[in-house]
Amino acid sequence: MTSKTSCRKSWLASANGDTDFPVENLPHGVFVAADGPRLGIAIGDCVLDVAAVDHGIDPGLLARPVWNDFMAAGPAVWAALRHRLQDLLSDPAQRPAVEPHLRPLAGMSLLLPFAVTEYTDFYAGMHHAQNVGALFRDPQNALPRNWLSIPVGYNGRASSVVVSGSDIRRPWGQILDPGADLPRLAPSARFDFELELGAVVGLPSTGMIDTARAFEMIFGYVLLNDWSARDIQTWEYQPLGPFQSKATATTIGPWIVPRAALEPFRIGAPQRLRPLLPYLEEAEPSRYDIGVEVLLQPEGGEAQVITRTGADALYYSAAQQLCHHALCGCAMRTGDLLGSGTISGPDPGSYGSLLEITRGGIEPLALGGAERAGFLADGDRVTLRGAARGKDYRIGFGTCEGRVLPAAGLPPAFQLAEEDLV
Amino acid sequence: MTSKTSCRKSWLASANGDTDFPVENLPHGVFVAADGPRLGIAIGDCVLDVAAVDHGIDPGLLARPVWNDFMAAGPAVWAALRHRLQDLLSDPAQRPAVEPHLRPLAGMSLLLPFAVTEYTDFYAGMHHAQNVGALFRDPQNALPRNWLSIPVGYNGRASSVVVSGSDIRRPWGQILDPGADLPRLAPSARFDFELELGAVVGLPSTGMIDTARAFEMIFGYVLLNDWSARDIQTWEYQPLGPFQSKATATTIGPWIVPRAALEPFRIGAPQRLRPLLPYLEEAEPSRYDIGVEVLLQPEGGEAQVITRTGADALYYSAAQQLCHHALCGCAMRTGDLLGSGTISGPDPGSYGSLLEITRGGIEPLALGGAERAGFLADGDRVTLRGAARGKDYRIGFGTCEGRVLPAAGLPPAFQLAEEDLV
Repeated sequence: MTSKTSCRKSWLASANGDTDFPVENLPHGVFVAADGPRLGIAIGDCVLDVAAVDHGIDPGLLARPVWNDFMAAGPAVWAALRHRLQDLLSDPAQRPAVEPHLRPLAGMSLLLPFAVTEYTDFYAGMHHAQNVGALFRDPQNALPRNWLSIPVGYNGRASSVVVSGSDIRRPWGQILDPGADLPRLAPSARFDFELELGAVVGLPSTGMIDTARAFEMIFGYVLLNDWSARDIQTWEYQPLGPFQSKATATTIGPWIVPRAALEPFRIGAPQRLRPLLPYLEEAEPSRYDIGVEVLLQPEGGEAQVITRTGADALYYSAAQQLCHHALCGCAMRTGDLLGSGTISGPDPGSYGSLLEITRGGIEPLALGGAERAGFLADGDRVTLRGAARGKDYRIGFGTCEGRVLPAAGLPPAFQLAEEDLV
Repeated sequence: MTSKTSCRKSWLASANGDTDFPVENLPHGVFVAADGPRLGIAIGDCVLDVAAVDHGIDPGLLARPVWNDFMAAGPAVWAALRHRLQDLLSDPAQRPAVEPHLRPLAGMSLLLPFAVTEYTDFYAGMHHAQNVGALFRDPQNALPRNWLSIPVGYNGRASSVVVSGSDIRRPWGQILDPGADLPRLAPSARFDFELELGAVVGLPSTGMIDTARAFEMIFGYVLLNDWSARDIQTWEYQPLGPFQSKATATTIGPWIVPRAALEPFRIGAPQRLRPLLPYLEEAEPSRYDIGVEVLLQPEGGEAQVITRTGADALYYSAAQQLCHHALCGCAMRTGDLLGSGTISGPDPGSYGSLLEITRGGIEPLALGGAERAGFLADGDRVTLRGAARGKDYRIGFGTCEGRVLPAAGLPPAFQLAEEDLV
């Protein structure tokens, strides 16, 4: 484990001490000002209106209210802005020029920090893969045979990615009841969350890339909740993988934590249970020591932590996933989002989904005196939190939350009586 | 089967008679002029520089060299341009104003006709699903259990979609040899084509949509070749579906045939082997009678038709696929591309992939005197053609072709000796 450095201090008191957003973090977001959306950097209990300060960057890269143009400019530009803002926010002489461009974060409306180009969801949590394999398939051969060789992933749906705070409508879908011959159309009764991190691709590529290059291409990381309808998934996923079960929504946190902020928290590679092919090796492993947790708040109830675990449960790094993604010649683009896969630790208190916590809906989940029989109820609010912790500071991700709304009404044409069928 | 109308005549002789592009077609493309890419409409042996004629449409919709803005404007605008161009091209009085804006199609460089937002590949060919199921899984239960209820599909990779004429590099990937314990990194030895049609989404949606609305959202259709690395696919596709095996490239034809041009060629629904859920029913079935074929030309050899079949082999229409795609609340967007699934007829001369034609690489394919042992060889050129045929005209798709190039060299970091492994 690398050493955890101390943190520079800011003239902004709230940026020192108990905050997700010290000077060493400076995550990228988009906030809504009176005149519309603007690029912001979180600092303490404020957001900095970046374009309004003397940032020293080509203003064209900061012109649109998404970070994509800046992300495409590459690591040297990322570092230049980061160092400039760290100076502005730590040098008391800069305070008069900068302070007018700070807005209180509390109550601020935040938008998607970048335009999501394409979305890929991986499956790098080994405990998760084992748990799901045992529940969906065969407990004796829970881990798919290719899992220790391939950073397994599938293409998700970019249009379904929403920012933290967006309400999530319980989906309808085809569901096959146990023992039934034909499916029925129904709202998902096994609607779930998945605790993940998302890697945000900054630099594009064509052709094959090695893991070192893939590492450089990654701009930063977000919290990610890949909402999943388990009953729809069970019926649909063979043979071509999950589709509608994963396309209702994927919520990401409003703050992209820059890769540079996480550099002191890199950890080594996990023990390899089978040798990796050389193309997947990393000279310098790029996994991170990031603690993550999930809070569940039933309607009218208190929020309660139901899971605490860490990103060290991931078997593959985002750089390895990105390298594999491009292996066949697949072009990667600025704004591509790579979900890590569900992060589950070895025991129920560290599982990253209700599927695992309730063992497929069988085990009750104690929730503030009450019990939850299986999956998410209407009105439930799911909140992810995450942070890498240094000696006297933390690099936090803010929160990534969403509330489950009841399923929508069906369109009239969906409700044909049986005798109307063609 | 609906009646097949006759065709209006054009003052442009090459648009009458033996052509893919009569006045009743008017497919949308993008051509490269001296001053850069421009929107074009194919007519006879020419392409019309649309923006240069008196088209009667908001010029802002035709400003970018992709058809997306026009596609987003909806069916009334689509019809207005279509009818205006039909008048311009059939009324001899318009000839002096229009003819200067026709360019010869021969040798013209054509680009992607639209910016592909997201790409989904379906699996609606029943013979194909049966053939592949028998080869990849169990001949006794070849058709997946959900296949007769769900328009099965998976999300592909939009960044890999290229226009006809683009060379295709044979991909590298993880391959598990029969009997081997660990995979190796190698160029695909079982590289294949897939004969498909692609539906192009014009109007966006949020929330659930019925099949009638889905039908209205579809702007038109293209030929589509979903290149597939069968050896990579076999090893990777469980449990989350195909990923790198399908992400090297998907080639689409340069011409989007408008839905309106295909209207006379609508055919009824196929016999349903199991009842569909009501949401998937179509009051007016929107499958089409389109003939499709594949030509294979080895390097230095002659092109030879190896497959002839028809889109009536598809069990689900694009409107049904689109309706299902949005069922869980997944937003659909202008520029989304939906592959139909491989179109295979009931016998080897009508199979839409080499996997099926050669029964997994076992049966030789006679090719101009020579034999092809299994899959595509370097230098092979694969060409798709397609047309709906009326009484005295055809609505053609042009050609969709690509040539297979040898695999690229590996990046240095991929070639670590075994003793270098971490």
